[in-house]
Amino acid sequence: MSTQPHTIVIKVGGGEGIDPTNLTPEIAELHESGMRVILVHGGSHETNQLAELLGHPTQTITSPSGHQSRRTDRATLDIFKMVYCGKVNKTVVESLQASGINAIGLSGIDAGIWVGKRKSAIRSVVDGQTMIIRDDLTGRVESVNAEFLYSLLDAGLVPVLTPPAVTPEGVAINVDADRAAAATARALNADELLLLSNVSGLLNDPDDTDSMIHEIDIQSMDLAHNAAKGRMKNKVLAAQEALEGGVAHVTIGSAGGDRPIERARSGAGTRFSLEPVT
Amino acid sequence: MSTQPHTIVIKVGGGEGIDPTNLTPEIAELHESGMRVILVHGGSHETNQLAELLGHPTQTITSPSGHQSRRTDRATLDIFKMVYCGKVNKTVVESLQASGINAIGLSGIDAGIWVGKRKSAIRSVVDGQTMIIRDDLTGRVESVNAEFLYSLLDAGLVPVLTPPAVTPEGVAINVDADRAAAATARALNADELLLLSNVSGLLNDPDDTDSMIHEIDIQSMDLAHNAAKGRMKNKVLAAQEALEGGVAHVTIGSAGGDRPIERARSGAGTRFSLEPVT
Repeated sequence: MSTQPHTIVIKVGGGEGIDPTNLTPEIAELHESGMRVILVHGGSHETNQLAELLGHPTQTITSPSGHQSRRTDRATLDIFKMVYCGKVNKTVVESLQASGINAIGLSGIDAGIWVGKRKSAIRSVVDGQTMIIRDDLTGRVESVNAEFLYSLLDAGLVPVLTPPAVTPEGVAINVDADRAAAATARALNADELLLLSNVSGLLNDPDDTDSMIHEIDIQSMDLAHNAAKGRMKNKVLAAQEALEGGVAHVTIGSAGGDRPIERARSGAGTRFSLEPVT
Repeated sequence: MSTQPHTIVIKVGGGEGIDPTNLTPEIAELHESGMRVILVHGGSHETNQLAELLGHPTQTITSPSGHQSRRTDRATLDIFKMVYCGKVNKTVVESLQASGINAIGLSGIDAGIWVGKRKSAIRSVVDGQTMIIRDDLTGRVESVNAEFLYSLLDAGLVPVLTPPAVTPEGVAINVDADRAAAATARALNADELLLLSNVSGLLNDPDDTDSMIHEIDIQSMDLAHNAAKGRMKNKVLAAQEALEGGVAHVTIGSAGGDRPIERARSGAGTRFSLEPVT
């Protein structure tokens, strides 16, 4: 048994209509109750908007297996840094500071918090044809600087983390923030991971909001993978990676409305568990 | 006598034509030699460019005494965060990481590194008339979280710091980065402060590049204040504040060309000293 305080990693998405500072009051409560809280955020919608304004509109890559990701050339990475690391990260930190929480905003580049390899080739399906892209600045988090994150938590800080990550060679790479949050939860032996966004949970049928899967255990992940479409695929993958790393509970739920963290922790959304669901 | 390693704070400006990653090789050398290095950067030129592109062009405020500053409303602060905390900060950190230096990029908001009060009223001279601006998000660094910065330095990290700062109430404020660097040098009992930018030093006559003041001591600061025009006024004020706080040497010099740090440390530019210049 771990003797560390209860540790929770909360990922808040950056899709349209999500205000990550909506979580601030509850994060302050959790922190003040003695929990260790790590917030991870996205910024995709605002990045799309800025990219459009700057004349470099977003291109989405769809892999042959249906995973979607942002085409990230050097110009896109600069825009990405501006929104994720600049506007969103510092606005969230400012909001937490205004609630009396000593937050610290960091990208995965800083202090080598998220290190991973760049993908040397990406397959992209365009009009039914598979193309190979070789200059994309994307990858996957392979190691987390847990020692440094522990030192921040020990100092009473709330880390607010955001992509990009960095390669061992020091190149910034776009990474999926859900899976980066899962890697962080694993590395910190977190008790819980919440993946909050503008979807309320995993639906068996994406067109039927009554088809929500409420509970699922690690033995039944195939069901979840089969149900997941589009960006939900990464969330289910993140959930699986967290469970496999020993995180007891992962919840996919809504970041909107009143007290979204409390709702996600008390059964709203889709809850993934290490223990068999009876 | 302090027993801490030699500590140097380097501020690199954000004016036109300056590439802050030009300093990376020398910062890596200083760090590897065992020195403690803290980098502070600006981002004014890129902020002006982005503000223009986004249809919210920069307005400059000139105080009755001739000090110049950026008019910072909420929209400007968002643009400011994007460039300073996002693009420039993370590009500098990426460059240092690529040189094998474990850098960490932070704004003054993060972990309460730079705390100060917001100015409740700013006097601005427009066409000879003095106006009062009450909603400007600007201020001055009054305290530095030296304990946290020491913990980063003790962990072998190179902090890369940038405005904004934050008020005790948790509101982000634009602060002058030269003076924030001076406050940081004071708080860390630094041995040296370098203020590097696209000017080569303090000129007695701004129109005569042969009129450089090479050395000046704290007893003769009036000379420097009288010579300084425009944005140089803040650099001289920063130099004075650092000297008064016990920093032995401050150099105003060029950030461009080959080995700008070595040149500034070996006599190029204007060197301010606590000890009398003979």
